[in-house]
Amino acid sequence: MDVVEQLKRFMEPKSVAIVGASRRTGEEAFNILENLLSYSYEGRIYPVNPNASEILGVKTYPSVEELPEKVDLAVVSLPRSLVPGIIKECVNKHIPAITIVTQGFTDAGDDEGRRLQTEIDNIIRGSGTRILGPNTFGTANAYFNFSSSFIPAKMEKIPVGLICQTGAFFEGFSNFRFLGKGIDLGDACDIDLTDGLEYFEQDAKIKVIALHIEGVRDGRRFLKVAKRVAKKKPIIALKTGRSGRAAQAAQSHTGSLTGSDEIWDTALKGAGVTRVSDIVDFCDAIRAFCVLPLMPGRKVGIVTYTGGYGIMGADACEKFGLELAELSSTTIDRLSALSPSWLTVGNPVDIWPGVMISKHSLFQMEEAAVKNLLCDEQVHAVICIFNPLKPTLYIEFCQLVKQAARDYPDKPLVFHIFGSLGDEAKNELEKTGKTLVFPSSDRAARALSHLANYSQFRLKP
Amino acid sequence: MDVVEQLKRFMEPKSVAIVGASRRTGEEAFNILENLLSYSYEGRIYPVNPNASEILGVKTYPSVEELPEKVDLAVVSLPRSLVPGIIKECVNKHIPAITIVTQGFTDAGDDEGRRLQTEIDNIIRGSGTRILGPNTFGTANAYFNFSSSFIPAKMEKIPVGLICQTGAFFEGFSNFRFLGKGIDLGDACDIDLTDGLEYFEQDAKIKVIALHIEGVRDGRRFLKVAKRVAKKKPIIALKTGRSGRAAQAAQSHTGSLTGSDEIWDTALKGAGVTRVSDIVDFCDAIRAFCVLPLMPGRKVGIVTYTGGYGIMGADACEKFGLELAELSSTTIDRLSALSPSWLTVGNPVDIWPGVMISKHSLFQMEEAAVKNLLCDEQVHAVICIFNPLKPTLYIEFCQLVKQAARDYPDKPLVFHIFGSLGDEAKNELEKTGKTLVFPSSDRAARALSHLANYSQFRLKP
Repeated sequence: MDVVEQLKRFMEPKSVAIVGASRRTGEEAFNILENLLSYSYEGRIYPVNPNASEILGVKTYPSVEELPEKVDLAVVSLPRSLVPGIIKECVNKHIPAITIVTQGFTDAGDDEGRRLQTEIDNIIRGSGTRILGPNTFGTANAYFNFSSSFIPAKMEKIPVGLICQTGAFFEGFSNFRFLGKGIDLGDACDIDLTDGLEYFEQDAKIKVIALHIEGVRDGRRFLKVAKRVAKKKPIIALKTGRSGRAAQAAQSHTGSLTGSDEIWDTALKGAGVTRVSDIVDFCDAIRAFCVLPLMPGRKVGIVTYTGGYGIMGADACEKFGLELAELSSTTIDRLSALSPSWLTVGNPVDIWPGVMISKHSLFQMEEAAVKNLLCDEQVHAVICIFNPLKPTLYIEFCQLVKQAARDYPDKPLVFHIFGSLGDEAKNELEKTGKTLVFPSSDRAARALSHLANYSQFRLKP
Repeated sequence: MDVVEQLKRFMEPKSVAIVGASRRTGEEAFNILENLLSYSYEGRIYPVNPNASEILGVKTYPSVEELPEKVDLAVVSLPRSLVPGIIKECVNKHIPAITIVTQGFTDAGDDEGRRLQTEIDNIIRGSGTRILGPNTFGTANAYFNFSSSFIPAKMEKIPVGLICQTGAFFEGFSNFRFLGKGIDLGDACDIDLTDGLEYFEQDAKIKVIALHIEGVRDGRRFLKVAKRVAKKKPIIALKTGRSGRAAQAAQSHTGSLTGSDEIWDTALKGAGVTRVSDIVDFCDAIRAFCVLPLMPGRKVGIVTYTGGYGIMGADACEKFGLELAELSSTTIDRLSALSPSWLTVGNPVDIWPGVMISKHSLFQMEEAAVKNLLCDEQVHAVICIFNPLKPTLYIEFCQLVKQAARDYPDKPLVFHIFGSLGDEAKNELEKTGKTLVFPSSDRAARALSHLANYSQFRLKP
């Protein structure tokens, strides 16, 4: 059975045993069964607990051995000393997939943790059973209403495949979810990053692969597979443990081998993987690859109604390796016709002087500037900086976004929004599914730079 | 009359003439008078417009000459060709302060703009009249219900004095205001950055000074004054126009002289000015200096309930020049007593293994960790990374924040929050007025690093 088939047991189990299912429920019980029941999962569920006959209305089994079928997946959450014995029972029953939730193996600071891990390794060797973890939330699949997480997994049917080394990513943010499908590797004693990549490589529902990496065991294999996969789908990586102290913490968190940060930087770049600098950059990049077209070059046009913010936009482009487009003479002529004679029109395009002398509305000026930039061959993406002074204004902008996506499907149009209605405008604009809104030009330019870099990688033979 | 008295005419005018007051009102009219009436300003208002007898119920005057008193401030918004004539009338009437809203002087791309500016310079020379602008929103003062902005100024009684070169800052963000008091320098033909600094130096209501700089005319004077003021109050500077293209745009935006970015970096640092990298950093730094105590050193303690995010916290500290505190043996002993025996307690402090074996609630574990770090002499600030799983949890955290501020008034306690209730938790925690909440450890560490750097500057003899 290849790795894809093996991982399907974790991602789309038709039946699951929860070994060590707890009778404690409610807040702070961190009850895997309780969470699983909340997702409308349609597979068969078998809690295993020798001290209960049912939990939350689900019939309970006294042991793995006595389960009525060879389940696809066993999720084990028991004190660490009991784990090897249970793994043995699972292997004996030919259960093909085991998620070990329990902490305290290679992530522990003691010899006993390492000894227990070795015991587990020996049990599964040659058995055909694969293990996810230990020290993991397991898997999540919004398309299958399944997760083994002991904190409710925030899933959404988005085309994002996440592979991480902390379950924290399963919990998302107020306005962001990582989980179309997710694999928390934990200590990655068996199933590792590369296995996960190969799984998402073939998954038609997954368009963007997001990696949180603390370390990998077989760097060579990972990079080879990553390079192959990156030619098909964008891969975004948040590699943590940059500093010596952080690397030490990573060692104790998941027992991962780490490596110098510069080596990682070069290797990921060479493999066409988009490396991000922090969690905010991670979210921005994932959103950019999900929502925006790849940028066909590095040249940006900026529309602003304040010169001062336009300068910040220019700074941001330079900072992230983008260029300010030299506008064509046609574009300059068209925009000059809308501006006072004293204004030297250039990029960034400052529309305010035009607004002050114009018979046109603020939106009409914005629209003219954005469209003229998008149809200029020198421009590969547009950053529009504005303050949505009133709801009617950003509703008009939503129409512009939809029209721009139809007429210029290869050029990203993004926003840096300020002013007191910024949050409302962001929500409405992003609802179009065709643009992203950022609170700074720096974040807008950084997201665009990821698109431009990846586009360049894809074009290389 | 010294510069402070002169600037009072702009900041707290007892009477104001609006020269070129428009009869157009409502949306997109950008009517200064209409905005001013909305703030409950208590001074005397005199619109000047030869074609109206009243606007919005306020009696209108046909010319500056016919004004019934020598007003404190004239706000001029007329086509540029008419401006020098009006300035002459104002000077003849001994009006001490003039804000020129009109664009198209040194900010313009043509000779006529420069010629008009020279004409204005010649008119005011030796007159005692001071000019703010041209190309400006003018001033704003939340404590005086006054602004000359043609887009409604978003003011709030916060201890922030803003000096900027674009009115965009007067408009703030959804969750942030810059304007306790504000001065938009525009082209800064007369009143400049240093004048503004001297004004806020003596202003008891202003605890934090925020600068948006495109360029200054007299760098030596600015740095000398900045260094003096920075010994009394923190100064935060967003210097834009880093790149060549951006500097060129700054030239055409406000006609400012610029200078190499490295020179600015060194000079601002030497003067004890906190330089920020972008608009988000600017807001974070302003909030940090308003809300948090100065950090008495560079050593950070991190509390996290996910090891993976703890590593990101360690990365962030290294990135921004902070250190991970080496915990005292007392702290380690106390935290070890709450954790499973296999866990090597260190910094970052991962509380999750303790939660899983503990009879204590999640909050009790968090509280024990935060308090133990705060009372450790090796720790100068604490970053707490958590997911507010339920409202009761972040309400308990609010109590902890208040208690920590009382018991450890010199040590900042900040949060990196994730999870789906992040926004609600942020709002509640920040309402205490004693902490800040960030969406990443990077932003938390960056804000702390500004406090630590400034604290070091203040301690230098």
